Amino acid sequence: MQKINLREKFSLFDEHWKPKIVGELNGQQVKLVKFAGPFVWHQHQAGDELFLVVQGRFRMEFRDRDVWLEEGEFLIVPRGVEHRPVADQEVHVLLFEPAGTLNTGDAQSALTAAALDRI
Amino acid sequence: MQKINLREKFSLFDEHWKPKIVGELNGQQVKLVKFAGPFVWHQHQAGDELFLVVQGRFRMEFRDRDVWLEEGEFLIVPRGVEHRPVADQEVHVLLFEPAGTLNTGDAQSALTAAALDRI
Repeated sequence: MQKINLREKFSLFDEHWKPKIVGELNGQQVKLVKFAGPFVWHQHQAGDELFLVVQGRFRMEFRDRDVWLEEGEFLIVPRGVEHRPVADQEVHVLLFEPAGTLNTGDAQSALTAAALDRI
Repeated sequence: MQKINLREKFSLFDEHWKPKIVGELNGQQVKLVKFAGPFVWHQHQAGDELFLVVQGRFRMEFRDRDVWLEEGEFLIVPRGVEHRPVADQEVHVLLFEPAGTLNTGDAQSALTAAALDRI
């Protein structure tokens, strides 16, 4: 049972779009990820996904609208809803989602990260 | 699908120890709570509990040690582990835990909050 300092954990990696696992509870995982640029359109069939902005801002695109997320704001994307995060500048995001959730969901992509590190 | 601004939500209530529900996903709930003073010793038999400090700091007491949690830090308390949060000064905390988790767990107390508001 170790406490996690978000800033320290974010300092441990530079790569974009590949979440790092920093905690696990009740079958869910807490992940940290850095976004930069546009991601791929995708959805998750089996789980809802929470995005909390720790530093910076980004835009979550949906098929019918965009939602801008600022530092200290979160959004829950329900399962089955297509979405695409786009970050004009690097942003640090905390994710909360079922263990084993694939970052690109149903979309095959060069950005698909199958095996995630724990940091 | 509405984004949640943590600062704005914390501005909507003053009471201590009574969590407010601000999100729900995968059978889990996101709650916001303000701690001040000592809570009661308790444990949760059925669920793990995450505490993330949004503003301020507090001490999580366990039977064999204390863990200080600062802003931007989180701790996961596994089910079945007795704990007691103590805040020398008011602290704003985000909780992540199974839907329906009772704040005082197995302990009956004047601080038990049976019905939580959604804000």
